[in-house]
Amino acid sequence: MDLQVAESLPPRPTSHNTPIGQANFPPMENTRILQAARGEEVDKIPVWVMRQAGRYLPEFLKVKESYDFFTICTTPNVACEVTLQPLRRFALDAAIIFSDILVVPQFMGMEVLMLPAKGPSFPQPLLSPEDAKRLIKPDPETAFKPYLDSIYLTRHSLKGKVPLIGFTGGPFTLFTYMVEGGSSNTFTKSRKWIFAHPEETKNILQMITDVVCEFLYAQVCSGAQIIQVFESHAGLLGPADFNEFILPYLNQIASFMKAKGRENPETDVPLILFAKDAGFMLEELFMTSYDAFGLDWTIDISKAKVLGQKYKKTIQGNFDPAMLYAPQDTIRARAFAMAQVGGKSGYIANLGHGIYPDTSPDHLQTFIEAVHTV
Amino acid sequence: MDLQVAESLPPRPTSHNTPIGQANFPPMENTRILQAARGEEVDKIPVWVMRQAGRYLPEFLKVKESYDFFTICTTPNVACEVTLQPLRRFALDAAIIFSDILVVPQFMGMEVLMLPAKGPSFPQPLLSPEDAKRLIKPDPETAFKPYLDSIYLTRHSLKGKVPLIGFTGGPFTLFTYMVEGGSSNTFTKSRKWIFAHPEETKNILQMITDVVCEFLYAQVCSGAQIIQVFESHAGLLGPADFNEFILPYLNQIASFMKAKGRENPETDVPLILFAKDAGFMLEELFMTSYDAFGLDWTIDISKAKVLGQKYKKTIQGNFDPAMLYAPQDTIRARAFAMAQVGGKSGYIANLGHGIYPDTSPDHLQTFIEAVHTV
Repeated sequence: MDLQVAESLPPRPTSHNTPIGQANFPPMENTRILQAARGEEVDKIPVWVMRQAGRYLPEFLKVKESYDFFTICTTPNVACEVTLQPLRRFALDAAIIFSDILVVPQFMGMEVLMLPAKGPSFPQPLLSPEDAKRLIKPDPETAFKPYLDSIYLTRHSLKGKVPLIGFTGGPFTLFTYMVEGGSSNTFTKSRKWIFAHPEETKNILQMITDVVCEFLYAQVCSGAQIIQVFESHAGLLGPADFNEFILPYLNQIASFMKAKGRENPETDVPLILFAKDAGFMLEELFMTSYDAFGLDWTIDISKAKVLGQKYKKTIQGNFDPAMLYAPQDTIRARAFAMAQVGGKSGYIANLGHGIYPDTSPDHLQTFIEAVHTV
Repeated sequence: MDLQVAESLPPRPTSHNTPIGQANFPPMENTRILQAARGEEVDKIPVWVMRQAGRYLPEFLKVKESYDFFTICTTPNVACEVTLQPLRRFALDAAIIFSDILVVPQFMGMEVLMLPAKGPSFPQPLLSPEDAKRLIKPDPETAFKPYLDSIYLTRHSLKGKVPLIGFTGGPFTLFTYMVEGGSSNTFTKSRKWIFAHPEETKNILQMITDVVCEFLYAQVCSGAQIIQVFESHAGLLGPADFNEFILPYLNQIASFMKAKGRENPETDVPLILFAKDAGFMLEELFMTSYDAFGLDWTIDISKAKVLGQKYKKTIQGNFDPAMLYAPQDTIRARAFAMAQVGGKSGYIANLGHGIYPDTSPDHLQTFIEAVHTV
């Protein structure tokens, strides 16, 4: 696709929670993902890929030589450029704004570094309930501004070719990062926190949820046409604790967004929930008011399809990203088989997790083409 | 319990695969875990804890000052001593021999180091199918000897107080370590290997399985009264790949051991499979010939109980080890509730994963007592 960062635009409305009016944006050419998320039949199965803009693309690595990770996120024309990059190569049916789930903890006053070998790192994680006093309720007008400017610019720059996805981390996942200070094999620090201080945990989860709701709605007001919540650590707690520390906050987010959508129909966008490793709670998740559910690759797509039909929910996923290392014939056969089960209504094709950095772009192309062959 | 490392013993039979004859060992006082594994009713629910001998115990840390990890594993009187340690403190219903799942790769010619901050590390992991040529078929008489001596000594030293569990890593889990060279958040190197080289992967899995079978049978011949297979990485592959690269080898192990048990009834011991994070394959696993199934804490114990009754299988687990960080009243209530669901037939209480090193022994005691209250 011939996509460039737009050079001049009408100004974005000054307030973060003022819907921008769909009329400002170019008319849409491809709305498959919106239709699929709403359960409507489509001509071709829509496909996008978690982390589709990023480290496996040589053109991204070139940008990365000049800007560090969070500078890209907060520099709208650069964030827009890297968001457009995969769309120039592949017949993707959606763009997802280049950003990070850990911008929300930053809004709340926590410093986050992206360390080259180690990934995200918080120099001052929450060590005790006392530390939670450091968390602030952000001023959205200033805190959100670069992210909303990126969305607005990217929506214009996409020229209506495909819809733009906005996103956030889920409250529980953000909490675990804020406590651990980074990634972990076991996340025992945050699980210790939760079980040793359950009430304080809930207070923090509520603070995070409030910021997440406001940020998501602001993204929609600025041009995001579909929203995904990444609850990447949803598999860390057993069912009873999941019901206490994860599900209520995910529910709040969906209820908030649906209520806003009823108030201002132009902000009524589909909501996707990706609760990774929480296949054991699939039916409970399908009973929430999200429209679509991202599935990791451990979930049997045919069983999930049956459940999706029962609850009138769209499913999304769930190709093992490691399967993109297989020979291209294998990728083609497996992706085709998966998409056939998913079908042309109530299904969005994707990987079961973010694409790995050492993936060949040619192999990703094979995956996308195979889906569109169905 | 008054348990000391036995000082003089009748000699262990010279061959690793000669059943030792139950008559050599002291008569058993507590066989709850054996009864429960076979689905018989018990007076109290048996309980043991994965990694019950180890880093959370001050007396273990004292031993660790003088011996490195694999030296403990290969020095029978030291391995026996640390195996007995938790039995002196807690009313556990089983001992598990102090060893490691990664001794099997060592038998096959791979060097494994246990690095203080990093955990297990292979200086020369398998980088390509070519590297698999380095793998050897061990001579069991020499390779297994210290491990079998430890089992024999510990079985005698236990004086029949509780049964002794032998164990191994599952073939797939061992393969992932051999390829990754250590732990990982994503295990992409090994998953890449599998999908890029499926036939070579199966050859290696078969080699590992053959060694595992021989080693497990040797443990039983030397005095192990129950066996657990730790397939700790069972959750890494989706259902189709699980059926191709994990389940067949787990099945082979159970079939082999059951066949040996029919040949020599004194080696007919219960088999437990702990396929961590593979709750999505629970029904398929229950259709294998293992007697009991360890469950991680994401599995709803009441649903697993129903499935266990359907397939006449024992379930084991599944207290979240992080829940041992909770106040003792919470531990007591949650453990009691779990054990009540598990019940006095077809259930063995345990954690859903190995105990974490910073757990308070007092909190573990509360857990064990609460189970025995049911």
